[in-house]
This record gives sequence, structure tokens and C-alpha cells, in this order.
Amino acid sequence: MRILMVAWMNREALAETAATGRAVYFSRSRGRLWRKGEESGHFQRVREIRLDCDGDVVLLEVEQQGGIACHTGRHSCFFSRLVDGRWVAVDPVLRDPEAIYRKDANDVSGKEDRNG
Amino acid sequence: MRILMVAWMNREALAETAATGRAVYFSRSRGRLWRKGEESGHFQRVREIRLDCDGDVVLLEVEQQGGIACHTGRHSCFFSRLVDGRWVAVDPVLRDPEAIYRKDANDVSGKEDRNG
Repeated sequence: MRILMVAWMNREALAETAATGRAVYFSRSRGRLWRKGEESGHFQRVREIRLDCDGDVVLLEVEQQGGIACHTGRHSCFFSRLVDGRWVAVDPVLRDPEAIYRKDANDVSGKEDRNG
Repeated sequence: MRILMVAWMNREALAETAATGRAVYFSRSRGRLWRKGEESGHFQRVREIRLDCDGDVVLLEVEQQGGIACHTGRHSCFFSRLVDGRWVAVDPVLRDPEAIYRKDANDVSGKEDRNG
């Protein structure tokens, strides 16, 4: 098991996640639900939903479609490691983000706001 | 590997964690650094420190002293599972919190604010 990512949820995101078995988050930058994989195809099938002891963190155990959770094309968002006081990217890019997020060449919208 | 807990850090907490190899968080309720285990003895020895892709979440891989990270006496804070629309505690209490946090019987301060 690896830790893939951390994102925000609101009540609606959690309800839809529980109902559909697919991870849904709340994108604060977009101000709307973010159905993980909606752009990248990298959906997350939810195996289990857990809550922490003070009830403010939800933990999803998922099967990561495509093995890529991160918008950089890596398995996990936690690909940087602290080494001698510096953050060093230690995990490989599995797929070029340009290939993951390729759309109509005329459509450059949303490029600043990739969320997987 | 299990996910044990989520807590806040500030710059000072991260710096001390990196310097000492023991997990240090920032307790928002106490308004000060929280050296995990300072009350419970359940220290965390840090094996690796990672950062996520947008640089706002730090991941500590730790050895959990006593095998108990949660103030409820459980291994992990994520002991509740969503089952048929309800949160159900599914993991066992390994040690009675009263035993973990026992102090001078006259000292009842901080009981509302156990943080492990």
C-alpha cells in the first residue's frame, strides 16, 4: 500500500464517493466537485472509506486506475524526499502529463489547473 | 504500512522533525509544538520525510513506538469504517487511554486535550 494523494472533500463529495464507489473530491481552485479521473482517465475505485478519531479526515483505500494518481504522471503525489535538507524527486514519471491531458490543440483552457 | 494519523506542522515542527528524527507537529489547540509521545511515550521515529506535488502536505514514514498512534489507544487514528452509511469502529483498543495518560491523580489538566 502506498499513499497516493491528499485532497479536500465536502459533504457532497463524500456522499457521491460512497454512493458510486469512485473517488470524488472538492476542488477548491475550481469551486466544484472533482471526479478524480474526469480529465486524465485515472479514476480511483474505492475499496474502503475510513474516518479518523476526531472526525475531520477521511481516508480512501483505492485501486488507482492506470497506476497514476499524480498530475505529474507519477504513481503518487509524494514523489519528493527530503535528502540533506533538500527536496529531491525520487520516483519516476510513468507517463508524460502532456500525453495524459492531451486535448484539442486549440483548447488550452484549464492547463493551469490540472487536477488529474 | 498503515496510515496512522494526520496532524498539522509549521516550519519549526518540520525543522525539528528533520533535525531530531522524531516526529514533531504543531498543536493548533495548544498553540505550540507537539512532540508526539511527550505525554503518552508513543514517540515516532522518522524513517523518511516526503512532500507532495504542490508542496503543501508532508508525509512522514515512521516507526511507531508502542504500536499506538491514536489517543484512543488504537494503532491508527483511522479505526472507523463506513459500513452501510454509518461509521463503525472496526479496530481494537490496544491499551486503555487511562493507562496511557495516567498522571498524578490530582492533575486533571489537559484531559480535554489529549494529543498522544
